Amino acid sequence: MPTRLASRIFVFRPSKETLVTYKKRTHTCGELRGTDIGKTATLTGWVDSRRDLGGVIFIDLRDRYGKTQVVFAPQHNADVHKSAEVLRSEFVISVSGKIARRPAGTENPDLPTGEIDIEATELTVLNKAETPPFQIEQETQASEDIRLKYRYLDLRRSNMQKNLLMRHKAYQVVRSYYDRNGFVEVETPILMKSTPEGARDYLVPSRIHRGKFYALPQSPQTYKQILMVAGFDRYFQIVKCFRDEDFRADRQAEFTQIDVEMSFVDENDVITMTEGCIAEMFEKVLDVKLNLHFPRMSYKEAMETYGSDKPDTRFDLKIRDCSDVVASSRFRVFSDTVKKGGIVAGICFPGLSNYTRNQLDGLTDFVKSLGAGGLVYMKMHADKIENSVEKFVSAEESAGIAAKLGAKIGDLVLIISGAWQKALSILGALRLEMANRLNLIPLNKWNFLWVVDFPLLEFSEEEKRFAAVHHPFTSPKEEDVSMIDSDPSKIRARAYDLVLNGTEIAGGSIRIHRKELQSKVFSLLGIGDEEARQKFGFLLEAFKYGAPPHGGIAYGFDRIVMLLAGEDSIRDVIAFPKTSSAMSLMDDSPSEVAKKQLDELHIRIV
Amino acid sequence: MPTRLASRIFVFRPSKETLVTYKKRTHTCGELRGTDIGKTATLTGWVDSRRDLGGVIFIDLRDRYGKTQVVFAPQHNADVHKSAEVLRSEFVISVSGKIARRPAGTENPDLPTGEIDIEATELTVLNKAETPPFQIEQETQASEDIRLKYRYLDLRRSNMQKNLLMRHKAYQVVRSYYDRNGFVEVETPILMKSTPEGARDYLVPSRIHRGKFYALPQSPQTYKQILMVAGFDRYFQIVKCFRDEDFRADRQAEFTQIDVEMSFVDENDVITMTEGCIAEMFEKVLDVKLNLHFPRMSYKEAMETYGSDKPDTRFDLKIRDCSDVVASSRFRVFSDTVKKGGIVAGICFPGLSNYTRNQLDGLTDFVKSLGAGGLVYMKMHADKIENSVEKFVSAEESAGIAAKLGAKIGDLVLIISGAWQKALSILGALRLEMANRLNLIPLNKWNFLWVVDFPLLEFSEEEKRFAAVHHPFTSPKEEDVSMIDSDPSKIRARAYDLVLNGTEIAGGSIRIHRKELQSKVFSLLGIGDEEARQKFGFLLEAFKYGAPPHGGIAYGFDRIVMLLAGEDSIRDVIAFPKTSSAMSLMDDSPSEVAKKQLDELHIRIV
Repeated sequence: MPTRLASRIFVFRPSKETLVTYKKRTHTCGELRGTDIGKTATLTGWVDSRRDLGGVIFIDLRDRYGKTQVVFAPQHNADVHKSAEVLRSEFVISVSGKIARRPAGTENPDLPTGEIDIEATELTVLNKAETPPFQIEQETQASEDIRLKYRYLDLRRSNMQKNLLMRHKAYQVVRSYYDRNGFVEVETPILMKSTPEGARDYLVPSRIHRGKFYALPQSPQTYKQILMVAGFDRYFQIVKCFRDEDFRADRQAEFTQIDVEMSFVDENDVITMTEGCIAEMFEKVLDVKLNLHFPRMSYKEAMETYGSDKPDTRFDLKIRDCSDVVASSRFRVFSDTVKKGGIVAGICFPGLSNYTRNQLDGLTDFVKSLGAGGLVYMKMHADKIENSVEKFVSAEESAGIAAKLGAKIGDLVLIISGAWQKALSILGALRLEMANRLNLIPLNKWNFLWVVDFPLLEFSEEEKRFAAVHHPFTSPKEEDVSMIDSDPSKIRARAYDLVLNGTEIAGGSIRIHRKELQSKVFSLLGIGDEEARQKFGFLLEAFKYGAPPHGGIAYGFDRIVMLLAGEDSIRDVIAFPKTSSAMSLMDDSPSEVAKKQLDELHIRIV
Repeated sequence: MPTRLASRIFVFRPSKETLVTYKKRTHTCGELRGTDIGKTATLTGWVDSRRDLGGVIFIDLRDRYGKTQVVFAPQHNADVHKSAEVLRSEFVISVSGKIARRPAGTENPDLPTGEIDIEATELTVLNKAETPPFQIEQETQASEDIRLKYRYLDLRRSNMQKNLLMRHKAYQVVRSYYDRNGFVEVETPILMKSTPEGARDYLVPSRIHRGKFYALPQSPQTYKQILMVAGFDRYFQIVKCFRDEDFRADRQAEFTQIDVEMSFVDENDVITMTEGCIAEMFEKVLDVKLNLHFPRMSYKEAMETYGSDKPDTRFDLKIRDCSDVVASSRFRVFSDTVKKGGIVAGICFPGLSNYTRNQLDGLTDFVKSLGAGGLVYMKMHADKIENSVEKFVSAEESAGIAAKLGAKIGDLVLIISGAWQKALSILGALRLEMANRLNLIPLNKWNFLWVVDFPLLEFSEEEKRFAAVHHPFTSPKEEDVSMIDSDPSKIRARAYDLVLNGTEIAGGSIRIHRKELQSKVFSLLGIGDEEARQKFGFLLEAFKYGAPPHGGIAYGFDRIVMLLAGEDSIRDVIAFPKTSSAMSLMDDSPSEVAKKQLDELHIRIV
């Protein structure tokens, strides 16, 4: 042995406890039943709870499969009873004994194993445990930070185990579905080329190629299109994607998507295939049978009815356009808005005419925080309509608005005016806010909706140029292509989003498969020839050699599992999530690295 | 439309060809049979080949599912016949017509569709194609660089499609197997903490946390152990791993592994479960039934018999130790080696006593290139043993060596002396080299072998310290733990490697699950407390709260698929591989990025 190491090595004497030989389990902790009484069994697992009732020690032994009660009593084995005194919560043990019927009145009908217990005659402590920072129970009061730091303890909770088992099931169902339908699973690179939305790319410096970088994929979009050019016809993958952005509750730096692409198809083919997958997930994971097909709604209708491109249709409270009623109102806020091409629209809230000044002020603050100039309200009293701007709005106009909105006596009408998209989005947010306040959103309802006919482009006021609403490979609708030079903002895309209960769970499109049209769209997006060549050169190059018509979709897998599991946060369905600032509290990453490592990568921190 | 954009937009006139409406396929190109004759069909796909026989044009139309012959003739449709004149290889088309029996004598028995053709009455060109840089055929003469640059064309070749479809099948079989056996699929993070082998980590700078980095996993080792601590009992995942090192033929910067971990198990449990998975893969992917269980061999025996820790046992040529015969030889090269604890060993090559001086010089150069001092040979002539060092080695010694090696008249014996591991490794390489030269390796033979009883540690002469042979979490064998202070180099690990035809395809171990033993092994490896805390603090911390005994394995998925597909390079079973210098020739990554991006990451290239 090299002497220079000797000083670093503390003396280590293998103890009986280090050299564990133990009896392996014959059953899991969720397996034994009344029919097993009289047999012997060995179980392994964690001490879930421990009660010392004077002469007898009871523990619940826990593993992934369930819990079984173990009884340590002198009459079963005095030595084992004595050694059980050291047992504490979360100790790992192997225990053997006879399976016995629990005394009458002590059965636990909540546990599948509740009829029996194990009369312990052998015990090995496989590992001790310090007192955990929070108790391992189905629901916990521990803060999320503590839960994430001690994720290995948090994941012992039955809720988290259920979520991850559900996630496991969802993976298998999705893959089996696509496999059965002739899709080929192909892995696309994680170390890839930086994409146009490069600002949100995670970059990876190359050691061998000084000054050059890979990027982690925000999506395998270009590769799946390449696979169609390569003739794979039907592709799928459940794949990690990465986005370095500011995180919201339902976003993660790395997230998982179900990625699908098909050749020689139109929108209906992709939509139908997706519906089949979703239906199978709900049936096999939740035992819920969905009605197919899901309804479809144009983006325009979704915005004008629900104020959102992902409407929650589980409740009503529809938006109605009142622009024509107030087009020539004395109230200039309304009439000027209409003149400028904006919209005046409102929602009727049945039975809320008694809303207080205070409540209405709160709502005004809410819409102002979203950028509204103000909130106009109308209360439908029995004798008259009370209008918050009645000095300016005529009684006829108020009546007209009420008629448009179907407002009846006792109702409250809230009205927003402004630019089309902004005013409607604020009404959409107000609609959701009110539904939550009024507890109008039914549980256990699964409202699916396809939103279609999105605009191809949106004009960015900030950058003074068009951006792709979906992505630059989305095909315009055939009947709109003629507007490509005259009125590009009017062009609708062959895109479709799938919405579930107000959450977007999938989105896709039919792609452009012609080089000329792709170049044209790039130019609309202000992506010059040189930039296009640099960024997507290989895709444009591939299009030269016979690209088939193709289209696809990507599902947000984390979100879908979150909805299946009935959770509010995707972090509860991800084994090792990061915080909203992209940190892993368990392993403390990101972290500092050695200077030597940076030298090898030819980079320096500034 | 914003005027400032106008100048950037070239005038675009949607042509008939841009606005493609086309008939969707009724069948794939591999589907039609004699029984379909008389019906009509629409096919879509790529023009695989085209023959113009004066009045009639024949094409083979290709998609992922097969090829179908299409006939364009004036009598079927004169316009369509005329428009078929533009068709060239790799054009994408939709074609409709009547399914007809091919004229007698023109059937193609090699194609499942060879009985029929389509008499084209409708044709739409969905996309034209430039002449591809190489022809799309089963085997190609194109260089690998060209194939990788135009991967979308290379992937159209039937060989590559077959490989990726086989890979697809392998994914499904593996997941179905582990799912059926109660394993939970869990995704571990890609953005994780740097590991001890940090020198080979790909690093990812954090935008939010200035000067901090994530690392891409070389393996999810710590996370899967954490999952055992969390009680998941059985975990699997098919997962991307990353290693920034110099690449050999069978390595990639990003590679795929089947990752497995189990609780409350010993070596036999992991080995048996793995054998079941391998057997199912071979049966379902190749229709080959394997005999279980696979044989096991100690590392020592593998080295001393085959000169390798991953022996190819498809052929014989075993190594034999002759040290005792030459221990007191006058030939100091031998006797000194034995005195210093080294080994003198050889291989007998039957019937090669007529090897020429030239051939033997070539072999001497070969072993010298591997670091041997020289190569001693003996030719077994009918009248005598010719020994290349017969001036120093007595006839008795030569006879003794021959006896040890079972050498008979007509055989050639090659002998290497030196330090145990080095001499045996050189003999192992010589054995493989000779087997290849002599064409001794049978095809279609699947020789599986478990190599077990690896040493826990190896001493790095360079760094003057021990390194883990597997990884620092591998458990020592119980009966060897007592040597942990006295003779650590003698400790054997609870590790196992699965070898197929001389290639390591999986490796794993029973892990240390006790904090004290883990700390001890870290200290043997020269990983100090502070370093251990920094690098694996969270794992050691987790071990405080009740870690179960556990172990696992990781399979090299790419290599397994390579062997299943009968390929020599893993690049032929990866859709988008990188070159040996970790470049993607198709998309030209890694590439330079904008200074703005680096600024946001707070890094600079030096």
